Amino acid sequence: MPQAPTPILSARLDFVRRRLTELQLEAIVVTALPNILYLTNFSGSSAIVVVTAERVLFLTDSRYVSAVGATRGTTYECPRMETIEVEGSYDARLAEVLTGQPSDQPAGRRIGFEADHLTVSRLTWLERAVDGRITLVPTTRVVESARVVKDGYELTTLRTAGHLLSRVTREILRSIEAGQSERDLALDIDWRIRNTGFERTAFETIVASGPNAALPHARPTQRTLSEGDLVVLDFGGVYDSYCVDLTRTVSIGEASARARQVYAAVLKGHDQALAAVRPGASRFAIDDAARTVLEQEGIGAAFGHGTGHGLGLEVHEDPRITRRRSDVDSRDEELVAGMVFTIEPGAYFPGWGGVRIEDDVVVTAEGVELLTDAPTALLEI
Amino acid sequence: MPQAPTPILSARLDFVRRRLTELQLEAIVVTALPNILYLTNFSGSSAIVVVTAERVLFLTDSRYVSAVGATRGTTYECPRMETIEVEGSYDARLAEVLTGQPSDQPAGRRIGFEADHLTVSRLTWLERAVDGRITLVPTTRVVESARVVKDGYELTTLRTAGHLLSRVTREILRSIEAGQSERDLALDIDWRIRNTGFERTAFETIVASGPNAALPHARPTQRTLSEGDLVVLDFGGVYDSYCVDLTRTVSIGEASARARQVYAAVLKGHDQALAAVRPGASRFAIDDAARTVLEQEGIGAAFGHGTGHGLGLEVHEDPRITRRRSDVDSRDEELVAGMVFTIEPGAYFPGWGGVRIEDDVVVTAEGVELLTDAPTALLEI
Repeated sequence: MPQAPTPILSARLDFVRRRLTELQLEAIVVTALPNILYLTNFSGSSAIVVVTAERVLFLTDSRYVSAVGATRGTTYECPRMETIEVEGSYDARLAEVLTGQPSDQPAGRRIGFEADHLTVSRLTWLERAVDGRITLVPTTRVVESARVVKDGYELTTLRTAGHLLSRVTREILRSIEAGQSERDLALDIDWRIRNTGFERTAFETIVASGPNAALPHARPTQRTLSEGDLVVLDFGGVYDSYCVDLTRTVSIGEASARARQVYAAVLKGHDQALAAVRPGASRFAIDDAARTVLEQEGIGAAFGHGTGHGLGLEVHEDPRITRRRSDVDSRDEELVAGMVFTIEPGAYFPGWGGVRIEDDVVVTAEGVELLTDAPTALLEI
Repeated sequence: MPQAPTPILSARLDFVRRRLTELQLEAIVVTALPNILYLTNFSGSSAIVVVTAERVLFLTDSRYVSAVGATRGTTYECPRMETIEVEGSYDARLAEVLTGQPSDQPAGRRIGFEADHLTVSRLTWLERAVDGRITLVPTTRVVESARVVKDGYELTTLRTAGHLLSRVTREILRSIEAGQSERDLALDIDWRIRNTGFERTAFETIVASGPNAALPHARPTQRTLSEGDLVVLDFGGVYDSYCVDLTRTVSIGEASARARQVYAAVLKGHDQALAAVRPGASRFAIDDAARTVLEQEGIGAAFGHGTGHGLGLEVHEDPRITRRRSDVDSRDEELVAGMVFTIEPGAYFPGWGGVRIEDDVVVTAEGVELLTDAPTALLEI
């Protein structure tokens, strides 16, 4: 699997180290696996990373030690990384490592941790273990604030992933048949995603037909696709660790007048949101562009969720393309070139069904680039 | 999808309420999704549950409100549950609900939270929001200590799941061919798992051939299965929300003397661990039974991981069948009838390959029952 080249890892680590200086921290303990992957190329399931001004201390257990060692001397090795094998408890080893490090700040050692990714239990345990020798300082979004703007390696990977997912989508749209069950179609979609070169599906594929399409997060059932159904197909893939995500809604047989009307409104919302994307725009304005169309079409109340979410090493990450609300975080409001997210307005009517149309975009210096490319006109099967 | 019947949910909630009384808590805030599923049958991706002495307050957003409503009046509805729709931030709504509840303990309201499943950031935010009106009390394993011993509904589900996974295994063992790539075989395994009725695979399927089999957590590559390889196949499925997990190792062509020897040692370890399972036995003794065999056979150092892990709503849960270590939790040492876990010793040799053999068991009043049933003799393909 291709991995981020060493100079890219260096730039990411430099970003983190600048934050350490600003926050007056000697080091930061990174516990979130996507953040660890971002900084080190490690894609296993168990590790803790400590980034200091000079080094990267990489704690992992016997299952992964040799895999990590195999990156040494390659063009994608993590610079100045030392592997520390964990035999029992990760946190016990971490406490040993932190308290045993030589420090040039002997009075008042401050080491950051990821407050969004460490449980209360683990912090309580660590506080006791370091026993006042270190001050553990909560930090938020130190690595995430780098991740929200994709670098060149990431954009290349996401473009390839978007291209492959679009190809899968066109295959799927050609293959759907009335009489298939939602579950069988979902299984077929998942097989095609994997067979096209994705490591795995990015989330549980949604195939929601007829009244089931009124549930934005429906799970595939044994219901068969039947004449007159709208069918929402929402699926994604993970390619070289990066997530892409796409939704189309099709009609089984000729669509009713109401189905056409709802579909046209959602598509117009999708297109207006797309047209609003540019550097400097507010992410709330993108949501507003879609929502205003649906309100003007008289179905604003049927659009209960946000317009989109960031994509990257996680399938739901920043930026969040949502309504502005007093009780929702408004950080990083302004879009920046290199941000990648979905545009996916929808409309849902209990008992009747629903429509959602989703594509993935990257903010560019000029405005917007679509990562996904599949027909958006209503397909009648 | 079948769900736990209401009397089972009542018994689970009673268990939690007894703990509330012991811990002198007015209520507990449940944030871990598997715990929420266990108590309410909700299998979506976003919810918070507050269990009080009398009621279950269920916070979720518009995507799930109608799905939850649809359980009303069924034989699997959650008793005395009230749905509270969240429009913006879950934690903001939670703080409102907690501080707005009528209380019979106006002086010193104590409400528990799951310290293993709440991040430091969320607790910090909640503490500020409730502003001293409530004391938020860390708890650990309140729901998990019920989950570790499976009830009748769960054992029935796990038996079915184990039976289905065994059927898939026999199909897979018949279908393997030299020349297939690891990735293609993994894709075929995953398709068979889904096509047999599992909702999804329980984790990323491992197909590790030849030297790759030396990595216990290898990811499938483009390497093709070749004469002389040992191939480790480790896969699992989720059936009605419950996880089962199985590993077999096969030989492509005739196995070498060393391969036979390692295989025989691992199989003997597997069998001895199985034979040690009974109520009242220490979970460390089960690990010891397998490990002692591998040590006697001179390959103890090649067995770097634990012998097994609990299975249930999560694919890795308690009880952990591991070595006893001073820095690893020794709670719940004694096995109890109704516990379900894997037995999966292995041996790994860098550059050469590895062997792992895994089955799933339930502790019974009499001793042990195998949930999985597929040939364990070394298969030469």
